[in-house]
Amino acid sequence: MKNSEIMKKDLKYNWHPCTQMKDHEFLPIIPIKKGKGVYLYDFEGNSYIDAISSWWVNLFGHSNEYINQKINEQLNTLEHVIFAGFTHEGAIKLAERLCKLTGFDKVFYADNGSSAVEVAIKMSFHYWKNKGETRPLFFSLENSYHGETIGALSVGDVGLYKDTYKEILIKNITIPIPKNQSEDEAQKALKKAEEIFQKHHKKVSSLIIEPLVQCAGYMKMHSPSFVKGLRELCDKYDIHMIADEIAVGFGRTGSMFACEQAGIKPDFMCLSKGLTGGYLPLSVVLTTDKIYMAFYCDYKELKAFLHSHSYTANPLGIAAANATFDIFEKENVIEKNKEKSKYIWESMQKFKELPNVKEIRQTGMISAIEMIDYPWEKRMGLKVYEYGLKNGVLLRPLGNVIYFMPPYIINKEEIDKMINTAYEGIKNIEK
Amino acid sequence: MKNSEIMKKDLKYNWHPCTQMKDHEFLPIIPIKKGKGVYLYDFEGNSYIDAISSWWVNLFGHSNEYINQKINEQLNTLEHVIFAGFTHEGAIKLAERLCKLTGFDKVFYADNGSSAVEVAIKMSFHYWKNKGETRPLFFSLENSYHGETIGALSVGDVGLYKDTYKEILIKNITIPIPKNQSEDEAQKALKKAEEIFQKHHKKVSSLIIEPLVQCAGYMKMHSPSFVKGLRELCDKYDIHMIADEIAVGFGRTGSMFACEQAGIKPDFMCLSKGLTGGYLPLSVVLTTDKIYMAFYCDYKELKAFLHSHSYTANPLGIAAANATFDIFEKENVIEKNKEKSKYIWESMQKFKELPNVKEIRQTGMISAIEMIDYPWEKRMGLKVYEYGLKNGVLLRPLGNVIYFMPPYIINKEEIDKMINTAYEGIKNIEK
Repeated sequence: MKNSEIMKKDLKYNWHPCTQMKDHEFLPIIPIKKGKGVYLYDFEGNSYIDAISSWWVNLFGHSNEYINQKINEQLNTLEHVIFAGFTHEGAIKLAERLCKLTGFDKVFYADNGSSAVEVAIKMSFHYWKNKGETRPLFFSLENSYHGETIGALSVGDVGLYKDTYKEILIKNITIPIPKNQSEDEAQKALKKAEEIFQKHHKKVSSLIIEPLVQCAGYMKMHSPSFVKGLRELCDKYDIHMIADEIAVGFGRTGSMFACEQAGIKPDFMCLSKGLTGGYLPLSVVLTTDKIYMAFYCDYKELKAFLHSHSYTANPLGIAAANATFDIFEKENVIEKNKEKSKYIWESMQKFKELPNVKEIRQTGMISAIEMIDYPWEKRMGLKVYEYGLKNGVLLRPLGNVIYFMPPYIINKEEIDKMINTAYEGIKNIEK
Repeated sequence: MKNSEIMKKDLKYNWHPCTQMKDHEFLPIIPIKKGKGVYLYDFEGNSYIDAISSWWVNLFGHSNEYINQKINEQLNTLEHVIFAGFTHEGAIKLAERLCKLTGFDKVFYADNGSSAVEVAIKMSFHYWKNKGETRPLFFSLENSYHGETIGALSVGDVGLYKDTYKEILIKNITIPIPKNQSEDEAQKALKKAEEIFQKHHKKVSSLIIEPLVQCAGYMKMHSPSFVKGLRELCDKYDIHMIADEIAVGFGRTGSMFACEQAGIKPDFMCLSKGLTGGYLPLSVVLTTDKIYMAFYCDYKELKAFLHSHSYTANPLGIAAANATFDIFEKENVIEKNKEKSKYIWESMQKFKELPNVKEIRQTGMISAIEMIDYPWEKRMGLKVYEYGLKNGVLLRPLGNVIYFMPPYIINKEEIDKMINTAYEGIKNIEK
């Protein structure tokens, strides 16, 4: 079958996420037949380097043999069981690993990133209620993105996703971010943050942040000291800190978790995406015994956290997550990534020569090239996307920002191809 | 390893959903080693009939060989790919099947039931905005449950889950439900509904309902004519109808979808749970071309539905869903269930003899026994739960309501055991 036939059938039935479907009158939807390693293959034999890890989820390549094997083993024993009143070995093993690695005490499972953010904000609000305080507001950062269910969208700040729904969102207060990764800008932003904390903290349950990199927010980056300073403000004004490491966790920023670089521990940490190595939807909210104990009492006091999802702690997703952890433990991934990250950064220097590039930036395995301020309606990023696809690389720019967030198994040759294609693509659009 | 050792480790790390964790000082958390058919097995060799299909998800038994095989095949070709700009065969096949079966035109994928509800309410609100109207309110039913993310929780009405969070929810308007399944009560409720429609409809995007059975709402049931009447009101007052068939879909009410019994088609239908046969988190929102076309325009008009989840249309979940559909197609499931449903209903008649039973009711494969109004703090349901576990049946009452929602592969002998255990359990608590 040809790509075009499959695409036609797809367009008859499927409404794709985050997509103006009319774009597909000129832009092909590419049907993928199989994946292997960093490559995706379509029905006409074309291959694409998945330079964005299929929306930042894949860590160790598509159709990874080891993860496949572990999921298959799980299939043959227990595909799923209710997680209220029941448990299973994988869920205990994963929770133990997560706690030991992060220093948190308790794990609450959910199904996707948005749901994890919803759990964290509800848990934080509920904590204060159980302590006798009603704090209906949340602090979040300018340019932040935390998902698109109503709660998660409310604490986000990317207008493109949020503005339409403003009448059906809940209230949050936005804190300005540093203009760049410099120390100076971090300190300036922290000063402004403190003014806002001073004014509102009594009605605020928590501050939610994406530490180090605001991924959906055009890959904007800030210094670890900004994160550290925010933690200090949360302590000083007695509000919780929620670290949304859904996109940045599992080594993306160069350390296993971004918070490590700031030397801080939040009150809640949300993880998803890479948690299952890019295989299955699963998320967790990690928290402390201090939070947990505010809900722990006789049933009749009605202080329990009665949140649930049907597939909470799904054994198949957890098998993928445990297999992913096995790979991290066996293969010294974080150290090996340092070399790759360095190689990517060196190879990216040439983008500075391009007249239509404004800035390049990197944090660990996340690297971004910001083009000049083309008007959004020119959709110059889309042109780079199209160029990439024609040349075998899946790039998916965010506005004028082209970025690389590849699976960690990418090799030098593939990095060269990914970078050179982006380079030619950016250069090409000015022609 | 013994159950108790595993439980101890579990309690060290895991915070379970919808649970007062202190209950587990006296109530065991049962670690499940494997599942097969209707049975779950713990680490001490005890077996439990899963009479609630692990939170209403499992249809064709645990560790079903055919579904396992299909997931395994998918693992070896494509575990996941981004669903923006890309597609895959399974997603097209499933979307086509869903549309052909229901008469809808388009499928939007998400990861869990809550997320599907969030998609539907956002899509409905956004539709009106694209048409030039701002309608920030939603109608929903008294006693309804649609999930627990902020948006889904806002349109629900079970106080136990909702009241704590009232300051961080969005506004909805509640419509009274019929007192029982009778025609008379349906007509009374519809009269009240029309008064509310008349008063508020101009600011309301949609009405969301669980057709025929409010599952988390203590298995309350109403007549198909109530659903039909609500559809007529939605037409008359020009607001959307969202049918949340997350729990009731896929044959639970006796027809493939509950809306069929009312002879109506909603504007949006949300499906999850049984969609993957109980294997993996996946959900869909089905809708019409009329809705779709309100978003279909040049990108620059900024009317696109920019909602997304990382794992949208996950190929593994979709492989499970297609395998589930295969079984429906091959095995005449809906017809076979009619006999089982009848057998369950006949076997349940004896509950009427018990002095502490107020009512029994059934819709298709959902059957409920409502005990007398014990004060909630007596937790009489929990006693039946404990009795069930000791006798090899997983029942999980909702307050004073004991219900059966077993996998469809349950046989007569297993039905007998399930029902007799519930009977003895209910009888036993008065001793």
